[in-house]
Amino acid sequence: MAVMDINADLGEGFGVWTLGDDLALLEIVTSANVACGFHAGDPLVMRRVCRAAVTRGVAIGAQVSYRDLAGFGRREIEMAPDELTAEVLYQLAALDGIARAAGGRVSYVKPHGALYNRIARDREQAGAVVEAIRDYDPSLPILTLPGSAVHEVAGPLTVIAECYADRAYTPEGTLVPRRRPGAVVHDADTVIERAVRMAVEGVVIAVDGTKVPVDARSICVHGDTPGAVELARAVRGALAAAEVDVRPFALPG
Amino acid sequence: MAVMDINADLGEGFGVWTLGDDLALLEIVTSANVACGFHAGDPLVMRRVCRAAVTRGVAIGAQVSYRDLAGFGRREIEMAPDELTAEVLYQLAALDGIARAAGGRVSYVKPHGALYNRIARDREQAGAVVEAIRDYDPSLPILTLPGSAVHEVAGPLTVIAECYADRAYTPEGTLVPRRRPGAVVHDADTVIERAVRMAVEGVVIAVDGTKVPVDARSICVHGDTPGAVELARAVRGALAAAEVDVRPFALPG
Amino acid sequence: MAVMDINADLGEGFGVWTLGDDLALLEIVTSANVACGFHAGDPLVMRRVCRAAVTRGVAIGAQVSYRDLAGFGRREIEMAPDELTAEVLYQLAALDGIARAAGGRVSYVKPHGALYNRIARDREQAGAVVEAIRDYDPSLPILTLPGSAVHEVAGPLTVIAECYADRAYTPEGTLVPRRRPGAVVHDADTVIERAVRMAVEGVVIAVDGTKVPVDARSICVHGDTPGAVELARAVRGALAAAEVDVRPFALPG
Amino acid sequence: MAVMDINADLGEGFGVWTLGDDLALLEIVTSANVACGFHAGDPLVMRRVCRAAVTRGVAIGAQVSYRDLAGFGRREIEMAPDELTAEVLYQLAALDGIARAAGGRVSYVKPHGALYNRIARDREQAGAVVEAIRDYDPSLPILTLPGSAVHEVAGPLTVIAECYADRAYTPEGTLVPRRRPGAVVHDADTVIERAVRMAVEGVVIAVDGTKVPVDARSICVHGDTPGAVELARAVRGALAAAEVDVRPFALPG
Repeated sequence: MAVMDINADLGEGFGVWTLGDDLALLEIVTSANVACGFHAGDPLVMRRVCRAAVTRGVAIGAQVSYRDLAGFGRREIEMAPDELTAEVLYQLAALDGIARAAGGRVSYVKPHGALYNRIARDREQAGAVVEAIRDYDPSLPILTLPGSAVHEVAGPLTVIAECYADRAYTPEGTLVPRRRPGAVVHDADTVIERAVRMAVEGVVIAVDGTKVPVDARSICVHGDTPGAVELARAVRGALAAAEVDVRPFALPG
Repeated sequence: MAVMDINADLGEGFGVWTLGDDLALLEIVTSANVACGFHAGDPLVMRRVCRAAVTRGVAIGAQVSYRDLAGFGRREIEMAPDELTAEVLYQLAALDGIARAAGGRVSYVKPHGALYNRIARDREQAGAVVEAIRDYDPSLPILTLPGSAVHEVAGPLTVIAECYADRAYTPEGTLVPRRRPGAVVHDADTVIERAVRMAVEGVVIAVDGTKVPVDARSICVHGDTPGAVELARAVRGALAAAEVDVRPFALPG
Repeated sequence: MAVMDINADLGEGFGVWTLGDDLALLEIVTSANVACGFHAGDPLVMRRVCRAAVTRGVAIGAQVSYRDLAGFGRREIEMAPDELTAEVLYQLAALDGIARAAGGRVSYVKPHGALYNRIARDREQAGAVVEAIRDYDPSLPILTLPGSAVHEVAGPLTVIAECYADRAYTPEGTLVPRRRPGAVVHDADTVIERAVRMAVEGVVIAVDGTKVPVDARSICVHGDTPGAVELARAVRGALAAAEVDVRPFALPG
Repeated sequence: MAVMDINADLGEGFGVWTLGDDLALLEIVTSANVACGFHAGDPLVMRRVCRAAVTRGVAIGAQVSYRDLAGFGRREIEMAPDELTAEVLYQLAALDGIARAAGGRVSYVKPHGALYNRIARDREQAGAVVEAIRDYDPSLPILTLPGSAVHEVAGPLTVIAECYADRAYTPEGTLVPRRRPGAVVHDADTVIERAVRMAVEGVVIAVDGTKVPVDARSICVHGDTPGAVELARAVRGALAAAEVDVRPFALPG
């Protein structure tokens, strides 16, 4: 029987500002990537999301980021590795403390935005993130793309690969960069169909029509664009209908 | 035999900016109140101070603060209690994670600046800080003034009182407010003498000449003004010469 | 013929986060209180709002605030007057430069949130805000409540009073504090009727049923709650239908 | 008669933190690059430095930066050009308003740190900075390195080249990158001698021993390292002794 986790970014408001519908997403996902205050997510938002996740049995992941509220963590920052390690450690520990006070714990790490993309190709920054996780709790898995540089520097850390049903894939199994035409799959039915195929058959049809293996334990869905929550819900429904066992890859605590 | 702890604020730099001489103070104090990033203290500074404290057997305290880098946490902020609880929990957990990665742990909490003063008289904000500590780890003591409102709302938390050898005391055993003339004792020899008397006899001479009991387990010294480190060192030396057992009130982990 | 200005808070997004519908409000108001980056409003948002305001002939006001993104400027901060003066001057100048680059200019100042409320009763902070405006451009009027302490310390500055059709008034002509029951008028028709009466007759019915004079040159509307923009549009329409001359109190530059 | 300006970075404290000795430097330099709040410099510091500069007839330059207090503006940030333009415009206008309230004005722009280095080679970001200056006041010159990409995109803006007596030069007249051995000249006498030669003869001896033309109207000195202020004072004295006319390249307002 096929097994798949569904993850999404949550807790990305800040103060008076909100982003996405956290409570709706928590009914759909099995893993919540919770913002840790550096690109979004103030402590009160973090606390509310953690409490709601614990109640629902959703796994809590630390969505660590560059320190960049103004840019929502979407801008690469040239950082010294020891600074990056310390900043990731700080965020991870802060969220874990809040999660534990809510009766749960952080059970994985998924870097956010520009940091996620940077460490997919930069071994130095990837190593800095890995060091932070290892220093905090080496049993925590890190969620990332197949082919990411994280795999090369992870050492004893568990690396979990994720997939995107709404992104085009190259014949090599990597994502087509966002700036290329056709990088994003907009048709909802196609997204749903691809999600099911990824979970059940472990494959995706690449841009050249070839069938490419997708060895992912989690599928990433979104909640911050119009219609995104409905699409995520449909993906979850379709996986269930296809008898996929939808559950977290990491124990919720 | 008299027992006394010496505490001071450390790790109060931020990025390129430094404040005080952390390494010199770590040779003097037995408890380090480490800034947690909200009034001072970036994650790299926090990490360095924690590592140095662990090496020297100095206890690490979370110096939690209002979120106020621009005002160094010296300005009161009207906050809702649930926000304050979440912000204190965030800071406490972040520092504890960094301390643990350095082989130690946070073993007490000492609020900083305006928050320290506010919760000495405001039961609502005091209760919010207490709730954060209780939710994180109810075994952590909180360091504060005698007569603070914290005592009234602490519930099962341990409250440790501290004293100041360089501050004038009222006959009631509270500090003379800073804005009053004579609030600060500037003469080094007098400060040293008062410190010893506080530790050995448990008393201080108040502004009206009466002898007032000071029931404190820790004495606070400073490191951020000219001559402060030398004075702190002299206080420690005088305590040792008076056969006071200078050691942390909380186990360094 | 009655004359009235309509003002609202605009440009209160930050980075990826939005708040309210700036473009819709710009079709309704004659004065835009533009956030200056301290409680909301990054430079790009400020620039877009200024350009749109200039195109529509809407006056631009500097919505200066305490430095408090996390609290949206809704929390009072105990600040030294010279710091507050410098922070207000900084914000005012920044917005004016952006407005001028867009072909307009700042033509008034309206403090935001907790600062607005604080200076209504605190002459020291009110004086600090007044000093900033006087130092920057003493011809700029300041928009505030009738009865505000700003009137007492404004010196040569022009003070413009504003009114709220959706707030209950005391028999003394001041707003009923928000925490009191009945402080906010929720019925849309009542709000519209009160707005017209304020503009045409210069009066409002206070909570005790008495008719109270409202000597205001501007009426404040909102855009950040559900239905707010529609209500603001209806107020504008009703004022026009009552032959009120709806125009800015300050020249748009 | 040779003419030279001396510029240095000033106002780089923030809140409780200080950096360098602003008052000492103001007796030495003829142009002060004043931090604008994004990498350093709160509004009160900006105000104090502007007032002191105006009193002494020192020209005020806007030391605009990436938004990066934690990294002191020394880390490159991948920013969209329109965001960068808006952020530079905001800083420039804020400082100019503060300078004008102090009786002076901003008379040039010198980007700081990572932004300075980035726009020396990146035409897109250089163009974004140029656009901000042009939109604010096209008569303001920009101070930069010879060979900077700023020259290529400056359009009608005046570009002023500066030189560094304490940095090694390549035979092509560019600075030897800091990470290379020998990039910084540490010997004080050599620095002084090079400064005089740059001003009087308009040349520097490059790392290969060749004499290279240095066509600079300003020389940059530092104030934030031990001995830096003394060296800057000695450079100024040596220029005066060599009958160099030491004065601002831009009128102080």
